[in-house]
Amino acid sequence: KFKGAPEIKTDDGWSFKPRGRILYDFNNLSSVPSTISIPGEGFSNEARRVRLGVQGKIPGGFGYKLEADLLDGVELTDAYLDYKSGGLTITIGQHNNFQSLEEISSSNDTSFIERSAFTDAFGFQRKVGVSAAYKTGDILLQGGVFTDNIDDLSDGNDSINLDGRIVYAPKLGDAQLHLGGSVHWTDLGDSIDSVRYRQRPLIHSVDTRFINTGNITAEEQLTYGLEAAVISGRFHAAAETHWAKVSRPGLANPTFFGGSVEAGLFLTDDTREYRGGVFKGVKVNNPVGSGGSGAWQVNVRYDRLDLTDAGIIGGTQDGYMASLIWTPVDYVRFLVNYGHLSYGNALGIVTGAPEDYSVDVIGARAQISF
Amino acid sequence: KFKGAPEIKTDDGWSFKPRGRILYDFNNLSSVPSTISIPGEGFSNEARRVRLGVQGKIPGGFGYKLEADLLDGVELTDAYLDYKSGGLTITIGQHNNFQSLEEISSSNDTSFIERSAFTDAFGFQRKVGVSAAYKTGDILLQGGVFTDNIDDLSDGNDSINLDGRIVYAPKLGDAQLHLGGSVHWTDLGDSIDSVRYRQRPLIHSVDTRFINTGNITAEEQLTYGLEAAVISGRFHAAAETHWAKVSRPGLANPTFFGGSVEAGLFLTDDTREYRGGVFKGVKVNNPVGSGGSGAWQVNVRYDRLDLTDAGIIGGTQDGYMASLIWTPVDYVRFLVNYGHLSYGNALGIVTGAPEDYSVDVIGARAQISF
Amino acid sequence: KFKGAPEIKTDDGWSFKPRGRILYDFNNLSSVPSTISIPGEGFSNEARRVRLGVQGKIPGGFGYKLEADLLDGVELTDAYLDYKSGGLTITIGQHNNFQSLEEISSSNDTSFIERSAFTDAFGFQRKVGVSAAYKTGDILLQGGVFTDNIDDLSDGNDSINLDGRIVYAPKLGDAQLHLGGSVHWTDLGDSIDSVRYRQRPLIHSVDTRFINTGNITAEEQLTYGLEAAVISGRFHAAAETHWAKVSRPGLANPTFFGGSVEAGLFLTDDTREYRGGVFKGVKVNNPVGSGGSGAWQVNVRYDRLDLTDAGIIGGTQDGYMASLIWTPVDYVRFLVNYGHLSYGNALGIVTGAPEDYSVDVIGARAQISF
Repeated sequence: KFKGAPEIKTDDGWSFKPRGRILYDFNNLSSVPSTISIPGEGFSNEARRVRLGVQGKIPGGFGYKLEADLLDGVELTDAYLDYKSGGLTITIGQHNNFQSLEEISSSNDTSFIERSAFTDAFGFQRKVGVSAAYKTGDILLQGGVFTDNIDDLSDGNDSINLDGRIVYAPKLGDAQLHLGGSVHWTDLGDSIDSVRYRQRPLIHSVDTRFINTGNITAEEQLTYGLEAAVISGRFHAAAETHWAKVSRPGLANPTFFGGSVEAGLFLTDDTREYRGGVFKGVKVNNPVGSGGSGAWQVNVRYDRLDLTDAGIIGGTQDGYMASLIWTPVDYVRFLVNYGHLSYGNALGIVTGAPEDYSVDVIGARAQISF
Repeated sequence: KFKGAPEIKTDDGWSFKPRGRILYDFNNLSSVPSTISIPGEGFSNEARRVRLGVQGKIPGGFGYKLEADLLDGVELTDAYLDYKSGGLTITIGQHNNFQSLEEISSSNDTSFIERSAFTDAFGFQRKVGVSAAYKTGDILLQGGVFTDNIDDLSDGNDSINLDGRIVYAPKLGDAQLHLGGSVHWTDLGDSIDSVRYRQRPLIHSVDTRFINTGNITAEEQLTYGLEAAVISGRFHAAAETHWAKVSRPGLANPTFFGGSVEAGLFLTDDTREYRGGVFKGVKVNNPVGSGGSGAWQVNVRYDRLDLTDAGIIGGTQDGYMASLIWTPVDYVRFLVNYGHLSYGNALGIVTGAPEDYSVDVIGARAQISF
Repeated sequence: KFKGAPEIKTDDGWSFKPRGRILYDFNNLSSVPSTISIPGEGFSNEARRVRLGVQGKIPGGFGYKLEADLLDGVELTDAYLDYKSGGLTITIGQHNNFQSLEEISSSNDTSFIERSAFTDAFGFQRKVGVSAAYKTGDILLQGGVFTDNIDDLSDGNDSINLDGRIVYAPKLGDAQLHLGGSVHWTDLGDSIDSVRYRQRPLIHSVDTRFINTGNITAEEQLTYGLEAAVISGRFHAAAETHWAKVSRPGLANPTFFGGSVEAGLFLTDDTREYRGGVFKGVKVNNPVGSGGSGAWQVNVRYDRLDLTDAGIIGGTQDGYMASLIWTPVDYVRFLVNYGHLSYGNALGIVTGAPEDYSVDVIGARAQISF
């Protein structure tokens, strides 16, 4: 059976499916203040994600997922084995540590070409560890112990993370509700002594960060967030908040904030999918090639990131965004995004930056993924 | 159905096939003038290409190809999505920009272990871009806009390429004719300010270039070429010419030249394949393992490269080559090549090089590809 | 048919199977003398192997195996084509050069999380070359000519290796016997002028080597070893010895020694597999998910490495180890190892190291492989 790529399955519990994705971005950054001189102004383009991998199941409840991004060398994304029994899933290896609804939903299925600013700013990334998830009725509990990203594991890195998330996802009539919260504690250990929070202006092909705390001497980090979403027919809305508190030795501990709220509407008779506490890819009702025009969706978002607190002045970013997504057939997407990004407390964060200013971005993406 | 690797297909338009290739070279360089001291003299060997990838089709006309070379880290080769409708193909992502008949024919199917000198010398490589190809009857039109190779895309790289190619490929009785031409314009942009043309002495395991312009300060590059080929039964011949013109700021603009002519004959009852404006791999009529001896082919080639013009003295290379190819079964090849390479205008291009000299090379390859 | 991943096969000689493995280690190093300060003391963890690849067969007797490790960039492991006819196998490309029973048995099927100390210490690794193997009755003959590892092949590297191995593997009643020996000669060539022998304290996540010759100026290396093993029902035992002799210009030639002896017992009704001169993975008789508890095995080992001879003082290591292996289903393993490593002649090999001391390690591994 094809799910983008063929999934080979047997009745006695074996399965195997190749995985892959190709995402290209063609972007533009404009309205940068003339006092700022950066290479990324104007047109830029990049391969955003190019990945190959495999996933499968082995009789007895075991499974695995192994995927690598092939840009700039090789970077492993998911690389884990798991065991499932009833509502329980135990996972060993590198995987997402339940950071937020949008972060753990696949980047293939987002409403915009990039996730909310806080998900990158606060350093969410997959880490090596052991976790358990338990689903019972409308409740999902997730928790784990993690060390660090697979590329950062040296024998001197003794950082440790505790992560937990709870989701309540009832159906209200035809509407799918999602309410959740997560908390994430990191002891940076002896070999890591700072954190840095920063973010690009929506489009990833630009490497300048207009908002940036620089390195903050730190011993621990605590982040926590709330999630809410609703899907009803062609409509969906989602809102998230996240706070990051940094424990500094002998100094005041800043707490930074990020959050976003979005709403989207399918112009065609389609709906956003949701399963297992995350958003899933649309299943196009009238695909191209079968007489249809695919699925068309519009989304708007307000995205806030505040990296200024307790003497750290990393700036604030208010993003106002709109996206148009065409999904001609399952597994293929074309996105166009517009973003107006307004900065505050930004004096000198990038060389020449005034206190307050704004920039405009346009991002276009072609995507195939399975 | 197996095409080297299994192609999994459905009636409603899905397909998936793994891709891979393993090419090993065992080479020898001799007759180097005693005044030249280089590490590559004598025997050398290398893995020439080791690749893994996937390709597939998605109902509605969509498709993709994703392949990576695994030597010296990871280097993406083809990484694109495409859409096909009738004779039209639209491609987005990294792919070949129609540089010449031999360049865009697969390296699995070449008559010699390396392509003609000009294809490397003039910097042909896959780039990220958008292209369209249209086939009608015996005519094929190809054109596209490209930026740069996927590994060279930074937010400051604003180079741009326009590429076009036209092919006329009629059947004359049993003979397949191919006539073509292509033109390629590059604006190097603000961050790239030079080009360099050079080439190895046929065998790739040797890193010395006896012919080399060094870096030439440049703003633009224009290359254009002509292609002709004929396949008739066991015989084939192919000839190509290509010119590269460099626009230098405030200096004379040199035009360099490369070209080759080759002829080949199958000793067995086989023929060279051709489809869609490129050469394809032989389909062995009497393979080993079915009572046959595989396909045996001999080829000869004259290969010219002239990198001396308008004050730039990069040398000239005249290559006289012969190859013997054994294809025991489809997807497996063994090649032996001999090359006599004669250099002119070469004084000091490599330390100790005289004005004129020649070297001899032998190259042997074992290849499996699918 | 699934062998971890699906093997797609046809009656006329085609086959294709994806390959992959994910091995995570969670380790602890303790009892390090207080005079030694190293980052790896205490807990450490890493992805030990993360690999993707393919293997297949092509009608006529041809085949290939291509696999890459995706940690720290990409490192090719097996990358070869082969030809089989009757008992004869010819292999071209990067593959193991028959170094010892344990080295050429897959790391998926070892009795401990790491192989015997000498297999790493003496630099066993896959190399590019051409080899032949011939099996007749209970006798296996293997020999080849190799250059160097695929990542170390430059046009100046003219090192060369000759390798041979002989195995006699009769059945005595129900017992499988294995007797073997191998010899390996290396001419380092002009561009490599030293060797270095060293080894970690069993667990790979620790990068400190308590035993280490440092660089030894060398021209040639000769290693040779003996192998013996027996499998009888739930019981197995294996013993190996290996010597490495270094030819130094104008100095005495040291000969270093490594060897190990191990014994193992399945607590469940299972047996260690053996085929073609190497150990193979257990086929679990009563797997989890079918009412069974998987295969449970205990092993003990004594592992000796002596890197002190002819004026070179690299230390000695005596390892006393025990392992418990749970194989719940074929292709999935969980291992716990304990090791007590005793060092002699070790003064200053690591900064602060006394003449004699010992350390303790615990290693735990989760593994999926196919």
